[in-house]
Amino acid sequence: MREVKLRFREAVVLFVLGGIAALIGDHSHVVTFTTVYYTDAVPFLWSSPFWFPPLVGAATVSLAELRLHLPEPRTTATVRQGVAGVAVVVGMYVTTALLHGAPVVPATTLICVAAIVTWCVLGDGPGAICGVIAAVVGPMTEIGLVEIGVFAYNPGSAGLFGVGLFLVPLYFAFGVVVAMLGELLAVRRGVQTEMSSAVSGPGAG
Amino acid sequence: MREVKLRFREAVVLFVLGGIAALIGDHSHVVTFTTVYYTDAVPFLWSSPFWFPPLVGAATVSLAELRLHLPEPRTTATVRQGVAGVAVVVGMYVTTALLHGAPVVPATTLICVAAIVTWCVLGDGPGAICGVIAAVVGPMTEIGLVEIGVFAYNPGSAGLFGVGLFLVPLYFAFGVVVAMLGELLAVRRGVQTEMSSAVSGPGAG
Amino acid sequence: MREVKLRFREAVVLFVLGGIAALIGDHSHVVTFTTVYYTDAVPFLWSSPFWFPPLVGAATVSLAELRLHLPEPRTTATVRQGVAGVAVVVGMYVTTALLHGAPVVPATTLICVAAIVTWCVLGDGPGAICGVIAAVVGPMTEIGLVEIGVFAYNPGSAGLFGVGLFLVPLYFAFGVVVAMLGELLAVRRGVQTEMSSAVSGPGAG
Repeated sequence: MREVKLRFREAVVLFVLGGIAALIGDHSHVVTFTTVYYTDAVPFLWSSPFWFPPLVGAATVSLAELRLHLPEPRTTATVRQGVAGVAVVVGMYVTTALLHGAPVVPATTLICVAAIVTWCVLGDGPGAICGVIAAVVGPMTEIGLVEIGVFAYNPGSAGLFGVGLFLVPLYFAFGVVVAMLGELLAVRRGVQTEMSSAVSGPGAG
Repeated sequence: MREVKLRFREAVVLFVLGGIAALIGDHSHVVTFTTVYYTDAVPFLWSSPFWFPPLVGAATVSLAELRLHLPEPRTTATVRQGVAGVAVVVGMYVTTALLHGAPVVPATTLICVAAIVTWCVLGDGPGAICGVIAAVVGPMTEIGLVEIGVFAYNPGSAGLFGVGLFLVPLYFAFGVVVAMLGELLAVRRGVQTEMSSAVSGPGAG
Repeated sequence: MREVKLRFREAVVLFVLGGIAALIGDHSHVVTFTTVYYTDAVPFLWSSPFWFPPLVGAATVSLAELRLHLPEPRTTATVRQGVAGVAVVVGMYVTTALLHGAPVVPATTLICVAAIVTWCVLGDGPGAICGVIAAVVGPMTEIGLVEIGVFAYNPGSAGLFGVGLFLVPLYFAFGVVVAMLGELLAVRRGVQTEMSSAVSGPGAG
């Protein structure tokens, strides 16, 4: 059994995917004044400091890797589900930006609803564990960054120790979907391995 | 054949579930000024007069009970579908609050779209009947409460004899989902009965 | 092999369906000031010049017809999927109206997310081709109409040569769903033909 389950190329795909989603979502937060950065000491990429996309990318890789160490990765995940899952998380992210001035209960409830439905359609037990870990570590990291003055959430979206309460369901859905992406990559690799061993024949390797 | 199909414990679950959803949705309506209560003669629970959650809870129990008296309750409903259905109805409820200032045609159309998609994914014929009954009785009850001065909808959300036109698709989806919850509870009870009779054996009862 | 795949009656259904959806969506755009018409030389139907619904209706018929000329129309499309697909496209249309004042990146991203999820749930390869054709021809037609001064998009929703950038994912989803409606009509016709030939018997025709 290998220590690291994801292959380098798969990790790169997840890293880039997470980084791009982070850029779109963070720009949406900045442009709607949901968040404001107080730093200009570092180079910016679009609306984000350069370290933000790699941070989210690394979290994406870690959660997918984690899923493959948890029991019974599913072999049923499809590319369609993977694409739809990524789209839904990005959609939830930009929705938190579009709702930035709305009262906290309906706005947060709507994101919770999206997270629950996402799990019901795409999730499993270990995926929910990845979701919970993301929903704890993600907001805590952001609370830390707010504490040291890197950025701030709009007062109307800062109900959770200075960060948006909506981060909890948003990160949960992120964890659930990324867990499924891990399963999907593992399945597709298996398919390719089977195909290539079928082509080369049992004695050719 | 028993007169009442739901067991006491199942009815309690539905009653509490309906009541909690009502509290979240009603708070969302009040906090966005979609509705305003003119009564303070009775105790309030969060943003609602104490009688509102039990009213919705009783409607929830009644619609689930009704479904089990209609033909061919499905045995295919899953817990995932039940959870997602409840989430979607709560999501529609808070969305009506978030859209409170929006023009009536796009806002109502969006709630209709959610109701139609909900039925397409989760509904059946008798579930639609439950939906239609909810879509008639629910708004009529609210119109009555508005008439006697208990509360009012914001003028921008009062197109249906003083209540929101969006109540029609919202109650419809509520009826469709609650009907499915009735089926789900009946199925799960069946499963448990089968399991317990399998454990005790055919001659043990 | 017949030149025209859709039957007259099927084409009428699609034409009327497209026209009604166009009236709802266009009214939503006009009432939210997402678009404004500069013409009053022609009769209006609700908020639209009389030629707008037939234009969308004709596009609907054309895209469904196109799908049936492309390879491997699926025989698995269901009425539920068709109804849900139409509802989702109308929902996306009115959402572009409800988001008319929102920043372009989150607003357009949200419509892209809906388009992607719609394809993932309901689409296939040739359906995506219909979607891409709609996403090119639709916005180009609107750009032409804006150029000759028939109407204009609100400056905040005019990022694509004077029209909304959101038109691209909206028309894409329109094309995907209409392609599926074409498949659905063809399948149901097949079912009816089979039923009628079963009733009349192999030698009765």
